[in-house]
Amino acid sequence: MELLKQKILAEGRVVGDGILKVDGFLNHQIDVELVSAMGKEIYERFKNDGVTKILTIEASGIGLAVMAAQYFGCKVLFAKKSRTTNMGNADLYVSKAYSFTHQNENTVLVSKKYIQPGEKLLIVDDFLAHGEASRALLDIARQAGAEVAGVAIAIEKGFQGGGDEMRREGINLYSLAIVDSMDEGKIIFREN
Amino acid sequence: MELLKQKILAEGRVVGDGILKVDGFLNHQIDVELVSAMGKEIYERFKNDGVTKILTIEASGIGLAVMAAQYFGCKVLFAKKSRTTNMGNADLYVSKAYSFTHQNENTVLVSKKYIQPGEKLLIVDDFLAHGEASRALLDIARQAGAEVAGVAIAIEKGFQGGGDEMRREGINLYSLAIVDSMDEGKIIFREN
Repeated sequence: MELLKQKILAEGRVVGDGILKVDGFLNHQIDVELVSAMGKEIYERFKNDGVTKILTIEASGIGLAVMAAQYFGCKVLFAKKSRTTNMGNADLYVSKAYSFTHQNENTVLVSKKYIQPGEKLLIVDDFLAHGEASRALLDIARQAGAEVAGVAIAIEKGFQGGGDEMRREGINLYSLAIVDSMDEGKIIFREN
Repeated sequence: MELLKQKILAEGRVVGDGILKVDGFLNHQIDVELVSAMGKEIYERFKNDGVTKILTIEASGIGLAVMAAQYFGCKVLFAKKSRTTNMGNADLYVSKAYSFTHQNENTVLVSKKYIQPGEKLLIVDDFLAHGEASRALLDIARQAGAEVAGVAIAIEKGFQGGGDEMRREGINLYSLAIVDSMDEGKIIFREN
Protein backbone atom coordinates (compact mmCIF):
# COMPACT_ATOMS: atom_id res chain seq x y z
CA MET A 1 0.00 0.00 0.00
CA GLU A 2 1.75 3.06 -1.33
CA LEU A 3 0.44 5.54 1.27
CA LEU A 4 1.74 3.39 4.13
CA LYS A 5 5.12 2.82 2.48
CA GLN A 6 5.55 6.57 2.00
CA LYS A 7 4.68 7.15 5.65
CA ILE A 8 7.17 4.50 6.78
CA LEU A 9 9.91 6.11 4.67
CA ALA A 10 9.03 9.59 5.96
CA GLU A 11 8.57 8.84 9.65
CA GLY A 12 9.75 5.31 10.45
CA ARG A 13 13.05 4.91 12.28
CA VAL A 14 15.30 1.88 12.25
CA VAL A 15 16.78 1.37 15.70
CA GLY A 16 19.17 -1.23 16.96
CA ASP A 17 18.90 -4.71 15.60
CA GLY A 18 15.88 -5.12 13.38
CA ILE A 19 13.49 -2.78 15.17
CA LEU A 20 11.36 -0.46 13.02
CA LYS A 21 9.80 2.31 15.10
CA VAL A 22 6.52 3.59 13.70
CA ASP A 23 5.16 4.94 16.97
CA GLY A 24 4.31 8.28 15.39
CA PHE A 25 1.42 6.85 13.38
CA LEU A 26 0.72 3.21 14.20
CA ASN A 27 1.46 1.86 17.66
CA HIS A 28 1.71 4.71 20.15
CA GLN A 29 0.30 7.68 18.34
CA ILE A 30 -2.32 6.56 15.80
CA ASP A 31 -2.86 8.50 12.60
CA VAL A 32 -6.55 7.70 12.41
CA GLU A 33 -7.00 8.89 8.83
CA LEU A 34 -4.13 6.71 7.60
CA VAL A 35 -5.22 3.71 9.65
CA SER A 36 -8.76 4.07 8.30
CA ALA A 37 -7.37 3.93 4.75
CA MET A 38 -5.40 0.84 5.77
CA GLY A 39 -8.59 -0.74 7.13
CA LYS A 40 -10.29 -0.06 3.81
CA GLU A 41 -7.41 -1.67 1.92
CA ILE A 42 -7.77 -4.79 4.06
CA TYR A 43 -11.50 -4.78 3.39
CA GLU A 44 -10.93 -4.59 -0.37
CA ARG A 45 -8.69 -7.64 -0.20
CA PHE A 46 -10.96 -9.82 1.97
CA LYS A 47 -14.45 -8.44 1.26
CA ASN A 48 -15.60 -11.54 -0.64
CA ASP A 49 -14.33 -14.04 1.90
CA GLY A 50 -17.31 -14.12 4.25
CA VAL A 51 -15.54 -12.64 7.25
CA THR A 52 -17.80 -12.72 10.34
CA LYS A 53 -15.40 -11.32 12.94
CA ILE A 54 -11.96 -9.74 13.21
CA LEU A 55 -9.55 -11.26 15.71
CA THR A 56 -6.58 -9.21 16.89
CA ILE A 57 -4.32 -8.93 19.93
CA GLU A 58 -3.86 -6.12 22.41
CA ALA A 59 -2.73 -3.43 22.30
CA SER A 60 -1.32 -2.26 18.97
CA GLY A 61 -3.61 -4.33 16.76
CA ILE A 62 -6.81 -2.79 18.09
CA GLY A 63 -6.80 0.50 16.17
CA LEU A 64 -6.35 -1.14 12.76
CA ALA A 65 -8.78 -3.95 13.62
CA VAL A 66 -11.54 -1.53 14.60
CA MET A 67 -11.02 0.54 11.46
CA ALA A 68 -11.15 -2.52 9.22
CA ALA A 69 -14.24 -3.81 11.07
CA GLN A 70 -16.12 -0.63 10.20
CA TYR A 71 -15.87 -1.59 6.53
CA PHE A 72 -16.76 -5.23 7.12
CA GLY A 73 -19.63 -4.29 9.44
CA CYS A 74 -18.45 -6.89 11.95
CA LYS A 75 -17.23 -7.00 15.53
CA VAL A 76 -13.65 -7.09 16.77
CA LEU A 77 -12.34 -9.53 19.33
CA PHE A 78 -9.01 -8.68 20.86
CA ALA A 79 -6.98 -11.38 22.58
CA LYS A 80 -5.44 -10.44 25.90
CA LYS A 81 -1.83 -10.96 26.83
CA SER A 82 -0.87 -12.11 30.23
CA ARG A 83 2.41 -13.22 31.67
CA THR A 84 0.57 -15.47 34.07
CA THR A 85 1.35 -18.92 32.72
CA ASN A 86 -1.70 -20.74 33.92
CA MET A 87 -5.04 -19.04 34.42
CA GLY A 88 -6.65 -22.42 35.08
CA ASN A 89 -9.85 -21.17 33.54
CA ALA A 90 -11.97 -23.52 31.46
CA ASP A 91 -13.74 -20.61 29.79
CA LEU A 92 -10.66 -19.42 27.92
CA TYR A 93 -8.78 -20.47 24.81
CA VAL A 94 -5.12 -20.19 25.67
CA SER A 95 -2.06 -20.06 23.46
CA LYS A 96 1.52 -18.78 23.72
CA ALA A 97 3.50 -16.22 21.78
CA TYR A 98 7.16 -15.47 22.28
CA SER A 99 8.04 -11.82 21.67
CA PHE A 100 11.50 -11.44 20.12
CA THR A 101 11.21 -7.66 20.60
CA HIS A 102 10.49 -7.83 24.31
CA GLN A 103 12.20 -11.19 24.86
CA ASN A 104 9.40 -12.65 26.87
CA GLU A 105 6.66 -15.18 26.39
CA ASN A 106 3.09 -13.98 26.54
CA THR A 107 0.10 -16.11 27.26
CA VAL A 108 -2.61 -15.21 24.75
CA LEU A 109 -6.17 -15.50 26.01
CA VAL A 110 -9.60 -15.37 24.40
CA SER A 111 -12.92 -15.99 26.08
CA LYS A 112 -14.61 -19.06 24.56
CA LYS A 113 -17.92 -17.22 24.50
CA TYR A 114 -16.89 -14.93 21.68
CA ILE A 115 -15.87 -17.40 18.97
CA GLN A 116 -18.54 -19.72 17.66
CA PRO A 117 -17.68 -22.83 15.65
CA GLY A 118 -18.23 -22.10 11.96
CA GLU A 119 -17.31 -18.45 12.38
CA LYS A 120 -14.96 -17.06 9.74
CA LEU A 121 -12.24 -14.97 11.30
CA LEU A 122 -9.90 -12.43 9.82
CA ILE A 123 -6.76 -12.07 11.90
CA VAL A 124 -5.40 -8.50 11.96
CA ASP A 125 -2.24 -7.15 13.55
CA ASP A 126 0.12 -4.20 13.22
CA PHE A 127 3.36 -6.16 12.75
CA LEU A 128 4.44 -9.59 11.61
CA ALA A 129 8.06 -10.59 12.11
CA HIS A 130 8.59 -14.20 13.17
CA GLY A 131 4.83 -14.62 13.19
CA GLU A 132 4.49 -15.68 16.82
CA ALA A 133 1.45 -13.52 17.63
CA SER A 134 -0.41 -14.41 14.44
CA ARG A 135 0.30 -18.10 15.02
CA ALA A 136 -1.11 -17.87 18.54
CA LEU A 137 -4.30 -16.37 17.08
CA LEU A 138 -4.42 -19.08 14.38
CA ASP A 139 -4.03 -21.67 17.13
CA ILE A 140 -6.93 -20.14 19.07
CA ALA A 141 -9.12 -20.12 15.94
CA ARG A 142 -8.29 -23.83 15.45
CA GLN A 143 -9.13 -24.63 19.07
CA ALA A 144 -12.46 -22.83 18.63
CA GLY A 145 -13.32 -24.73 15.46
CA ALA A 146 -13.50 -21.48 13.52
CA GLU A 147 -12.38 -20.96 9.94
CA VAL A 148 -9.74 -18.35 9.15
CA ALA A 149 -10.31 -16.23 6.05
CA GLY A 150 -6.78 -14.91 6.26
CA VAL A 151 -4.25 -12.83 8.10
CA ALA A 152 -3.94 -9.07 7.42
CA ILE A 153 -0.88 -7.24 8.65
CA ALA A 154 0.14 -3.59 8.46
CA ILE A 155 3.91 -4.09 8.31
CA GLU A 156 5.65 -7.40 7.68
CA LYS A 157 9.35 -7.68 8.37
CA GLY A 158 10.03 -9.92 5.42
CA PHE A 159 13.67 -10.46 6.36
CA GLN A 160 12.62 -12.28 9.53
CA GLY A 161 10.91 -14.96 7.50
CA GLY A 162 7.73 -15.60 9.47
CA GLY A 163 5.43 -14.35 6.73
CA ASP A 164 6.93 -16.39 3.92
CA GLU A 165 6.77 -19.50 6.07
CA MET A 166 3.05 -18.88 6.61
CA ARG A 167 2.54 -18.39 2.85
CA ARG A 168 4.29 -21.69 2.16
CA GLU A 169 1.80 -23.32 4.52
CA GLY A 170 -1.04 -21.94 2.41
CA ILE A 171 -2.20 -19.25 4.84
CA ASN A 172 -3.84 -16.33 3.03
CA LEU A 173 -1.51 -13.65 4.38
CA TYR A 174 -1.75 -10.09 3.14
CA SER A 175 0.66 -7.43 4.36
CA LEU A 176 0.14 -3.79 3.44
CA ALA A 177 3.90 -3.24 3.40
CA ILE A 178 6.69 -5.81 3.43
CA VAL A 179 10.12 -4.59 4.52
CA ASP A 180 12.71 -6.89 2.97
CA SER A 181 15.75 -5.17 4.39
CA MET A 182 16.70 -2.41 6.80
CA ASP A 183 20.47 -2.75 6.62
CA GLU A 184 22.27 0.37 7.78
CA GLY A 185 18.93 2.01 8.40
CA LYS A 186 17.89 1.94 4.73
CA ILE A 187 14.38 0.55 4.35
CA ILE A 188 13.80 -1.57 1.22
CA PHE A 189 10.27 -2.73 0.46
CA ARG A 190 9.38 -5.92 -1.40
CA GLU A 191 7.91 -5.25 -4.83
CA ASN A 192 4.20 -6.09 -5.13
CA MET B 1 -26.38 7.66 26.58
CA GLU B 2 -29.49 5.53 26.30
CA LEU B 3 -28.13 3.02 23.77
CA LEU B 4 -25.16 2.20 25.99
CA LYS B 5 -27.29 1.90 29.12
CA GLN B 6 -29.61 -0.54 27.35
CA LYS B 7 -26.61 -2.58 26.22
CA ILE B 8 -25.21 -2.67 29.77
CA LEU B 9 -28.58 -3.84 31.12
CA ALA B 10 -28.91 -6.47 28.40
CA GLU B 11 -25.35 -7.85 28.36
CA GLY B 12 -23.40 -6.52 31.34
CA ARG B 13 -22.74 -8.88 34.24
CA VAL B 14 -22.00 -7.92 37.82
CA VAL B 15 -19.38 -10.25 39.24
CA GLY B 16 -17.83 -10.37 42.69
CA ASP B 17 -17.21 -7.15 44.48
CA GLY B 18 -17.91 -4.16 42.29
CA ILE B 19 -16.81 -5.61 38.93
CA LEU B 20 -19.02 -4.91 35.91
CA LYS B 21 -18.16 -7.21 32.99
CA VAL B 22 -18.88 -5.68 29.59
CA ASP B 23 -16.44 -7.81 27.64
CA GLY B 24 -19.06 -8.72 25.07
CA PHE B 25 -19.13 -5.24 23.56
CA LEU B 26 -16.49 -2.95 25.04
CA ASN B 27 -13.22 -4.37 26.35
CA HIS B 28 -12.62 -7.82 24.86
CA GLN B 29 -15.10 -8.09 22.05
CA ILE B 30 -15.83 -4.64 20.59
CA ASP B 31 -19.23 -3.85 19.10
CA VAL B 32 -17.84 -1.44 16.54
CA GLU B 33 -21.22 0.02 15.58
CA LEU B 34 -22.08 0.81 19.20
CA VAL B 35 -18.61 2.16 19.97
CA SER B 36 -18.79 4.38 16.89
CA ALA B 37 -22.07 5.84 18.18
CA MET B 38 -20.38 6.38 21.55
CA GLY B 39 -17.51 8.18 19.81
CA LYS B 40 -20.03 10.44 18.09
CA GLU B 41 -21.72 11.22 21.43
CA ILE B 42 -18.34 12.24 22.87
CA TYR B 43 -17.74 14.42 19.81
CA GLU B 44 -21.09 16.17 20.25
CA ARG B 45 -20.18 17.03 23.83
CA PHE B 46 -16.66 18.33 23.16
CA LYS B 47 -16.80 19.49 19.52
CA ASN B 48 -16.52 23.18 20.41
CA ASP B 49 -13.62 22.78 22.81
CA GLY B 50 -10.73 22.93 20.37
CA VAL B 51 -9.54 19.37 20.91
CA THR B 52 -6.27 18.75 19.02
CA LYS B 53 -5.54 15.18 20.13
CA ILE B 54 -7.15 12.33 22.05
CA LEU B 55 -5.12 10.76 24.84
CA THR B 56 -6.06 7.30 26.08
CA ILE B 57 -4.40 4.31 27.71
CA GLU B 58 -3.86 0.79 26.44
CA ALA B 59 -5.59 -1.49 25.81
CA SER B 60 -9.32 -1.04 26.39
CA GLY B 61 -9.44 2.70 25.75
CA ILE B 62 -8.08 2.44 22.21
CA GLY B 63 -11.24 1.34 20.38
CA LEU B 64 -13.39 4.16 21.74
CA ALA B 65 -10.59 6.71 21.35
CA VAL B 66 -10.07 5.86 17.68
CA MET B 67 -13.80 6.02 16.99
CA ALA B 68 -14.13 9.41 18.68
CA ALA B 69 -11.04 10.68 16.84
CA GLN B 70 -12.70 9.96 13.51
CA TYR B 71 -15.32 12.58 14.33
CA PHE B 72 -12.82 15.10 15.67
CA GLY B 73 -10.46 14.52 12.73
CA CYS B 74 -7.53 14.25 15.13
CA LYS B 75 -4.91 11.69 16.11
CA VAL B 76 -4.97 9.34 19.08
CA LEU B 77 -2.10 8.87 21.47
CA PHE B 78 -2.30 5.84 23.70
CA ALA B 79 -0.22 5.69 26.87
CA LYS B 80 1.58 2.43 27.53
CA LYS B 81 1.47 0.54 30.77
CA SER B 82 4.52 -1.09 32.14
CA ARG B 83 5.22 -2.73 35.44
CA THR B 84 8.83 -1.70 35.13
CA THR B 85 9.12 1.01 37.75
CA ASN B 86 11.94 2.99 36.28
CA MET B 87 12.59 3.15 32.57
CA GLY B 88 15.25 5.78 33.15
CA ASN B 89 14.38 7.37 29.86
CA ALA B 90 14.45 11.13 29.51
CA ASP B 91 12.23 10.98 26.43
CA LEU B 92 9.16 9.78 28.32
CA TYR B 93 6.53 11.35 30.51
CA VAL B 94 5.95 8.92 33.36
CA SER B 95 3.12 8.64 35.85
CA LYS B 96 1.61 5.94 38.07
CA ALA B 97 -1.83 4.39 38.27
CA TYR B 98 -2.93 1.87 40.83
CA SER B 99 -5.45 -0.66 39.49
CA PHE B 100 -7.96 -1.69 42.15
CA THR B 101 -9.30 -4.34 39.77
CA HIS B 102 -5.94 -6.00 39.20
CA GLN B 103 -4.42 -4.88 42.50
CA ASN B 104 -1.19 -3.72 40.99
CA GLU B 105 0.49 -0.45 40.17
CA ASN B 106 1.13 0.37 36.56
CA THR B 107 3.67 2.81 35.29
CA VAL B 108 2.03 4.93 32.60
CA LEU B 109 4.32 6.10 29.81
CA VAL B 110 3.99 8.57 26.96
CA SER B 111 6.71 9.61 24.55
CA LYS B 112 7.44 13.34 24.96
CA LYS B 113 7.55 13.73 21.20
CA TYR B 114 3.82 13.34 20.79
CA ILE B 115 2.46 16.03 23.10
CA GLN B 116 3.35 19.59 22.26
CA PRO B 117 2.91 22.41 24.79
CA GLY B 118 -0.30 24.28 24.01
CA GLU B 119 -2.00 21.18 22.66
CA LYS B 120 -5.56 20.64 23.85
CA LEU B 121 -6.12 17.04 24.84
CA LEU B 122 -9.29 15.07 25.34
CA ILE B 123 -8.73 12.13 27.68
CA VAL B 124 -10.81 9.07 26.75
CA ASP B 125 -11.14 5.75 28.54
CA ASP B 126 -13.56 2.84 28.81
CA PHE B 127 -14.01 2.87 32.60
CA LEU B 128 -13.65 5.30 35.45
CA ALA B 129 -13.88 3.95 38.99
CA HIS B 130 -11.45 5.50 41.47
CA GLY B 131 -10.06 7.56 38.62
CA GLU B 132 -6.48 6.38 38.86
CA ALA B 133 -5.89 5.91 35.13
CA SER B 134 -7.50 9.23 34.17
CA ARG B 135 -5.48 11.01 36.84
CA ALA B 136 -2.27 9.53 35.48
CA LEU B 137 -3.18 10.88 32.04
CA LEU B 138 -4.07 14.29 33.53
CA ASP B 139 -0.69 14.25 35.27
CA ILE B 140 1.07 13.53 31.99
CA ALA B 141 -0.84 16.35 30.25
CA ARG B 142 0.28 18.70 33.05
CA GLN B 143 3.91 17.57 32.74
CA ALA B 144 3.72 18.22 29.00
CA GLY B 145 2.29 21.71 29.44
CA ALA B 146 -0.80 20.72 27.47
CA GLU B 147 -4.33 21.87 28.18
CA VAL B 148 -7.04 19.33 28.87
CA ALA B 149 -10.44 19.96 27.28
CA GLY B 150 -12.00 17.26 29.40
CA VAL B 151 -12.27 13.61 30.25
CA ALA B 152 -14.72 11.36 28.37
CA ILE B 153 -15.55 7.95 29.81
CA ALA B 154 -17.77 5.16 28.58
CA ILE B 155 -18.83 3.77 31.96
CA GLU B 156 -18.30 5.50 35.29
CA LYS B 157 -18.75 3.52 38.47
CA GLY B 158 -20.32 6.40 40.38
CA PHE B 159 -20.41 4.46 43.65
CA GLN B 160 -16.62 4.38 43.76
CA GLY B 161 -16.47 8.14 43.93
CA GLY B 162 -13.54 8.95 41.64
CA GLY B 163 -15.67 10.79 39.11
CA ASP B 164 -17.48 13.05 41.56
CA GLU B 165 -14.17 13.96 43.15
CA MET B 166 -12.88 15.03 39.75
CA ARG B 167 -16.04 17.08 39.11
CA ARG B 168 -15.57 18.86 42.47
CA GLU B 169 -12.07 19.79 41.30
CA GLY B 170 -13.57 21.41 38.22
CA ILE B 171 -12.50 18.79 35.68
CA ASN B 172 -14.86 18.65 32.71
CA LEU B 173 -15.77 14.98 33.05
CA TYR B 174 -18.41 13.42 30.84
CA SER B 175 -19.45 9.79 31.28
CA LEU B 176 -21.79 8.15 28.79
CA ALA B 177 -23.27 6.01 31.57
CA ILE B 178 -22.88 6.37 35.33
CA VAL B 179 -23.63 3.30 37.42
CA ASP B 180 -24.61 4.48 40.89
CA SER B 181 -25.23 1.07 42.37
CA MET B 182 -24.85 -2.62 41.54
CA ASP B 183 -26.02 -4.08 44.86
CA GLU B 184 -27.13 -7.69 44.52
CA GLY B 185 -26.36 -7.53 40.82
CA LYS B 186 -29.00 -4.90 40.09
CA ILE B 187 -27.57 -2.07 37.98
CA ILE B 188 -28.94 1.40 38.80
CA PHE B 189 -27.90 4.30 36.57
CA ARG B 190 -27.64 7.91 37.70
CA GLU B 191 -30.31 10.13 36.18
CA ASN B 192 -29.00 12.62 33.64
